[in-house]
Amino acid sequence: MSRGELLVIKIGGGKTINLEAIIADLKFVDQQYLVVHGAHALRDEIAQKLGHEVKTITSVSGYSSVLTDDDAMDIFMMTYAGLRNKRLVEMAQKYGINAIGLTGLDGRLIQGKRKTAIKAKMGDRIKVIRNDLSGRPEKLNVELLQSLISSGYVPFITPPILSYEGQALNTDNDSIVALLVKELGNRVPKLSVEVVIHLLEAPGLLKDPRDPNTLITTIKKVELEHIEKDYTQGRMKRKMLAVRQAFDYGAKKIIFADGRIEQ
Amino acid sequence: MSRGELLVIKIGGGKTINLEAIIADLKFVDQQYLVVHGAHALRDEIAQKLGHEVKTITSVSGYSSVLTDDDAMDIFMMTYAGLRNKRLVEMAQKYGINAIGLTGLDGRLIQGKRKTAIKAKMGDRIKVIRNDLSGRPEKLNVELLQSLISSGYVPFITPPILSYEGQALNTDNDSIVALLVKELGNRVPKLSVEVVIHLLEAPGLLKDPRDPNTLITTIKKVELEHIEKDYTQGRMKRKMLAVRQAFDYGAKKIIFADGRIEQ
Repeated sequence: MSRGELLVIKIGGGKTINLEAIIADLKFVDQQYLVVHGAHALRDEIAQKLGHEVKTITSVSGYSSVLTDDDAMDIFMMTYAGLRNKRLVEMAQKYGINAIGLTGLDGRLIQGKRKTAIKAKMGDRIKVIRNDLSGRPEKLNVELLQSLISSGYVPFITPPILSYEGQALNTDNDSIVALLVKELGNRVPKLSVEVVIHLLEAPGLLKDPRDPNTLITTIKKVELEHIEKDYTQGRMKRKMLAVRQAFDYGAKKIIFADGRIEQ
Repeated sequence: MSRGELLVIKIGGGKTINLEAIIADLKFVDQQYLVVHGAHALRDEIAQKLGHEVKTITSVSGYSSVLTDDDAMDIFMMTYAGLRNKRLVEMAQKYGINAIGLTGLDGRLIQGKRKTAIKAKMGDRIKVIRNDLSGRPEKLNVELLQSLISSGYVPFITPPILSYEGQALNTDNDSIVALLVKELGNRVPKLSVEVVIHLLEAPGLLKDPRDPNTLITTIKKVELEHIEKDYTQGRMKRKMLAVRQAFDYGAKKIIFADGRIEQ
């Protein structure tokens, strides 16, 4: 690959993701890249230890997400921005990778609009949720990212992001990846984001997420829409929507790989 | 004050520090500055909730510090780099201050040498501690800090720092402040660090830390050495040593102020 292409690597936040193996593999990436990572299993583990119940909400259109109230945001910051981000940066530094950990709050890296009212399905009823701190990433501080990348740093990005009113918001990482592809590819001369690698808790993308035998190794953009409709699980449905957006924004190749094994 | 002077503001990590009031005051700082903050009370609170005992060690020379083993480092990252750093950055952003939170790990901002063996007093006996992840900050990534500050960002710095072997280390914030004064003042043309503000859980610097009536409003460098010797409490003894170093490295004025009230 020629210089000027930026690789976006997304590391899932599942329990069985092999972080050490992934970071060891990053040593061999011979182009500019950045990392977006989650920590949902770690968050749930720490929340449980602290006696905090993790609540999931499903919107009327069928997309599901975690309810992030103010207490949940404390735990979110502890686990995503704190423990997971800093352990990843530490591991990377151990391998000689000059990682710099950032949330969307830092230097207004990623801003978005808070969802002030979410219509959620609660069994058969519909309830309006107003204490959820979440939103969609819309605005990227391209200058900050570009400056860091061109100076040789590898950004390790994780939520929360920042609302336009200055509040920390939970968001989904696939939407962050889509925003990165869109903004870095379109607004930075001499830079394009053509390849996105998703490191999942599965052998790759599965047509049926409960069956590891339904592995999809390559996928066309039109097929994605069908899969998105097929998925009944809210979490994967949301992921497919964001992946389709990354294609729309200019990504040429999206790779789904197993984040649990050394490769 | 003329441009080119950098103000270093240290926010203590005590329970009664009024963070919101401090951040609101930062709006009125009319020169370049950066923040160094702790979170020891928050760490102890979360450690207790997670059922982790915080152990303190006192070196043979009388300086005391917290034992940071691998589990303690997890909690350290959650509270210092995670919850406290990101809540401070969020508050700053709410006030229009473009804060960027960084630990010493990020971009190798602060590196130091790990203390591989610490001789500690355990009652009447002396024990050699080998599982402590701590060290003294020695090396600053001046280029990264300068680049961020000159682009208008306000760095909010907190431990851990990075060992030369790539391990996260606990350190004390007064030593970080001393390093910042030394490196930014001496190595950056057109920049000097002349004023350091310490925001404490006290009306200011106290000759006797248990008696708020022994307030010292101004202090000469030579007097500091006497106070350092007088202090029997390990924590303040260590602080005074680092404050004296900041003077040695070129700071002209060190202000101790009450971090619990609006000013």
